[in-house]
Amino acid sequence: MSFSNMRVHEFLSALASPTPTPGGGTAAAIAGAMGTALLLMVAGLEKTKSNTDDEKAALMAAAGGLKPLRARLMSLADDDASAFDAVMAAYRLPKASDEEKAARTRAIQAALRGATEIPLETLRACAHALEHARVVADCGNRSAESDVGVAFGLLRAAANGAAANVRSNLGGLKDEAFKAATEAETARLLEPAALR
Amino acid sequence: MSFSNMRVHEFLSALASPTPTPGGGTAAAIAGAMGTALLLMVAGLEKTKSNTDDEKAALMAAAGGLKPLRARLMSLADDDASAFDAVMAAYRLPKASDEEKAARTRAIQAALRGATEIPLETLRACAHALEHARVVADCGNRSAESDVGVAFGLLRAAANGAAANVRSNLGGLKDEAFKAATEAETARLLEPAALR
Repeated sequence: MSFSNMRVHEFLSALASPTPTPGGGTAAAIAGAMGTALLLMVAGLEKTKSNTDDEKAALMAAAGGLKPLRARLMSLADDDASAFDAVMAAYRLPKASDEEKAARTRAIQAALRGATEIPLETLRACAHALEHARVVADCGNRSAESDVGVAFGLLRAAANGAAANVRSNLGGLKDEAFKAATEAETARLLEPAALR
Repeated sequence: MSFSNMRVHEFLSALASPTPTPGGGTAAAIAGAMGTALLLMVAGLEKTKSNTDDEKAALMAAAGGLKPLRARLMSLADDDASAFDAVMAAYRLPKASDEEKAARTRAIQAALRGATEIPLETLRACAHALEHARVVADCGNRSAESDVGVAFGLLRAAANGAAANVRSNLGGLKDEAFKAATEAETARLLEPAALR
């Protein structure tokens, strides 16, 4: 079942249960979707900061960029749980013979790579949303300032949470070129998230 | 309708719609509930950091404190929207006569006070959850380290978001003693949230 179709209290219970999924990766993606949704609210308000046509155009463009990011983050919440379930399934594979051991190692490496790429996508989506957030903060209605502040906080928490999941799964990978490239991109994407 | 009974996608659509509620205060409370739920997951894992009885007892105590906080934050999400709706209803009261003006001013002050107290309660609940989070970080299973990291990030974002809402509504209040006491408590509660 998709988390998007769960009731909020059901989702929170699933998060609180001691099963490994949904976990922090899913929570980070949902928090990113919440931050994106708040920015869409402010971008959609009739009044803008000084009610100029330029502000209205900038906010409309921001909303155009934020809408697909919100949908993407919602589906990454599901993907994160599936990717983590795949890692655990790979660890449960038989390891009696050398052949089985080799097949299991390959399966674990493939699954860990998937479980690294999903939170990296979450981090990318949050970094894009934070770019739009700056436009919303500059042009949006001042009465919604605290909503924009909450959105920034949620997107930063989501970006940092996604990065923690990238790095956690990266630790088990053996492909050094992929590890180095992924760590470099993670650090680069986190730079603006650490600010403001 | 309680947000807790909404489907996750319905809640996100409500957040994104250009109506004033639900807004940042509700999103902060839900983010706090998500962080609390993640801590409950880690506290409920069979394995602890070094599998000692002391750790198990500490995590059980933390879970005992976190469970009511999660429920409290979920209900504060609803209360925040009601409190903000009450402020807007007060602003819409008639102001033709001096009597009406005085009644409207009193109603606005009462509603703003309510809309300050609700996010202050959210901030208090997040500050308590962050105290338990330190126990979960110290005693919880190391394999769930990134989940605890996401929980810290969400609770900090929720605490800061709630504080932004406290301060935003405090600005319109005239009771200087209440304003000073509330600002002092807000700053004090944010101190540990700013850390770690």
